[in-house]
Amino acid sequence: MEPSSGSRDAGPAVPPVAAVLPAGGSGERLGGATPKQFCALQGRPLVSYTVQAMERIGWISDIIVVVSPENIETMKSIIEKYGHKRVTVVKGGITRHRSIFNGLKVFAENEFSNHLLQKPEVVIIHDAVRPFVEEDILSKVAMAAKEHGAAGAVRPLVSTVIASAADGCLDHSLERARYRASEMPQAFLFDIIYEAYQQCTDYDLDYGTECLHLALKYCKTNAKLIEGTADLWKVTYKRDLYAAESIIKDNLSEQVCVITDVKEMVAQVGSLLHESLQSQIKVEAMSASLSKNASHLQNILSGHCYNFVCVNDKKCAIQETQQLVDVLERSNIPLLYPVVLILVHLDVSENISFSIGMEELTRIKKFARELKKKNILVYGLLIQYK
Amino acid sequence: MEPSSGSRDAGPAVPPVAAVLPAGGSGERLGGATPKQFCALQGRPLVSYTVQAMERIGWISDIIVVVSPENIETMKSIIEKYGHKRVTVVKGGITRHRSIFNGLKVFAENEFSNHLLQKPEVVIIHDAVRPFVEEDILSKVAMAAKEHGAAGAVRPLVSTVIASAADGCLDHSLERARYRASEMPQAFLFDIIYEAYQQCTDYDLDYGTECLHLALKYCKTNAKLIEGTADLWKVTYKRDLYAAESIIKDNLSEQVCVITDVKEMVAQVGSLLHESLQSQIKVEAMSASLSKNASHLQNILSGHCYNFVCVNDKKCAIQETQQLVDVLERSNIPLLYPVVLILVHLDVSENISFSIGMEELTRIKKFARELKKKNILVYGLLIQYK
Repeated sequence: MEPSSGSRDAGPAVPPVAAVLPAGGSGERLGGATPKQFCALQGRPLVSYTVQAMERIGWISDIIVVVSPENIETMKSIIEKYGHKRVTVVKGGITRHRSIFNGLKVFAENEFSNHLLQKPEVVIIHDAVRPFVEEDILSKVAMAAKEHGAAGAVRPLVSTVIASAADGCLDHSLERARYRASEMPQAFLFDIIYEAYQQCTDYDLDYGTECLHLALKYCKTNAKLIEGTADLWKVTYKRDLYAAESIIKDNLSEQVCVITDVKEMVAQVGSLLHESLQSQIKVEAMSASLSKNASHLQNILSGHCYNFVCVNDKKCAIQETQQLVDVLERSNIPLLYPVVLILVHLDVSENISFSIGMEELTRIKKFARELKKKNILVYGLLIQYK
Repeated sequence: MEPSSGSRDAGPAVPPVAAVLPAGGSGERLGGATPKQFCALQGRPLVSYTVQAMERIGWISDIIVVVSPENIETMKSIIEKYGHKRVTVVKGGITRHRSIFNGLKVFAENEFSNHLLQKPEVVIIHDAVRPFVEEDILSKVAMAAKEHGAAGAVRPLVSTVIASAADGCLDHSLERARYRASEMPQAFLFDIIYEAYQQCTDYDLDYGTECLHLALKYCKTNAKLIEGTADLWKVTYKRDLYAAESIIKDNLSEQVCVITDVKEMVAQVGSLLHESLQSQIKVEAMSASLSKNASHLQNILSGHCYNFVCVNDKKCAIQETQQLVDVLERSNIPLLYPVVLILVHLDVSENISFSIGMEELTRIKKFARELKKKNILVYGLLIQYK
């Protein structure tokens, strides 16, 4: 299993980092047949959202997804379908710790891959069922791991934690403020967590679940605890799937993708839009020619974006736009939600009397009317820009 | 504030029980302006669902809802609007414990009401933001409280709980299997929990949150811990509101209300429907004349039921049904969801050749066609019954 190579942006000054996502759970708490990481939210498996959250971060070099043997093909087809990059699928063990250990071995042993992946300085461990993880907390745990050897996100306890006596009665309750819930992501110096897993007993591998505990027990490393946000929650019960789906829907409607082949415009339009709409909407700006790069477009759409701003400096871009429309239709997205398409014509000429002809206008109107029937709402914008 | 009297079914052999619902939270974890207990789910405040869950249980005599002073009028209007019975609204204190204490005082002191409510043997304490509580767990904690003095629902921990050292690093993690999350409902012998609150220090009243802890500390009562179901979760974050709304929608579509004025039929049809549809649908059977009791109907509809079976033994009940339709339309329910209305004509005559005339049939068909435009789907059923 070889990881695909992908683009890596210049991120913050974090060390070489890889990520291991244990995704081997059976979903018993969910009460359904499908393990929760493979449950579809808006038609797309949960694990794919989590992989996407990792993949967007340029400074994460490799993403190792560990799944139970019977789900390896499913996972590979998800990677194929949603065009995930830098992902290696690894066969899990019978417990969570054994699965994570298998994931780490990809960097150190030949057991799971034809060729060793390059050993990272820091490895992030994150659950496949926590899709809403943000770059901020990932970089915080990675940096803290570099400094302290280990780090993990924590959250305040929602309920009081109590210990029961042998007779099923309350023994004592813990003072809530002194304790924290240990969440994911966690990060480790690779050598520390790998050493811990190599040292650790079968009992720990079979019955333990907490990586921070292994680092402490076997490597005397006291993990740095980082206060995380509420986004870090784990999809555990059926109600969490409902919640996750609603959040994904909300996010989608608050996201706009700027597409243009006018190179210098991408960054500019993107950042201006971002600036003025910051609190309301997420802006993703891409340089792509609508007429050329269909597979690139396909990737954008697999992110299930429903709002597009297409910027061009030609007089009429209907033909180019048609290609985006074709891709949209094949994706079935407009069946689920109305897609908003804003065509921006940017006039950078010195010609003050620039105007759009009646014939042109009629064509655009007709185009928009046709698309409305397909649940794609087209708006045009003419901007004179000097 | 006097509680309204309501019907009390013959429940299981539980002692006289009252319930206190602290609903004074400010909702800071939710990140919104409206405290979560007053957030609308399907147009109805969360707290109303929780009150309803309590009120359906005949053996709970009084329901005390404790709200912060600024929300007393809001709470009273909710009780009025949704026709809640046996509810007393009490002014909360500045902390959770102080609010619960105020709720308990209604049974023991004249501070909060013109007349004392009858002191219950057992009092259930339940959060207003846990709307999905079932009778089963309520009766279990009530019975256990009678036997042990105190009892509380617990759930397995979802995350590992850890203690941090002064430097913000991991001190130790707790073995997950040995601990439980303390949830609600909890129940107490009234005298024990009231004694505990009277004894307890200002520090406990201000900084504590756990009633089981007070019973242990001040009355040496080790609460019996009862394993609860996943339904007991607490609406804490915005995502929980999404989840709660989805669950409520699901429940609504799985609920049918049987209405008839043929007295002996109610129980019979209700229980037969219940028997045959048990796993798929919740059946609520009521005796009500469609033509007479509009306010009764209003109450049913405030439960947001979308499926109705109307049983009658007259030849044609279109006029009577029209009244249900009128109430439905005023409620705006058919705007949100299609309402299914099944008209059952029960023929109990000895006449074998009973049949419905063409004219009659045409009238019913026309009636159904008209209602379809209003998103109310009418079906007719003719049953010969001996």
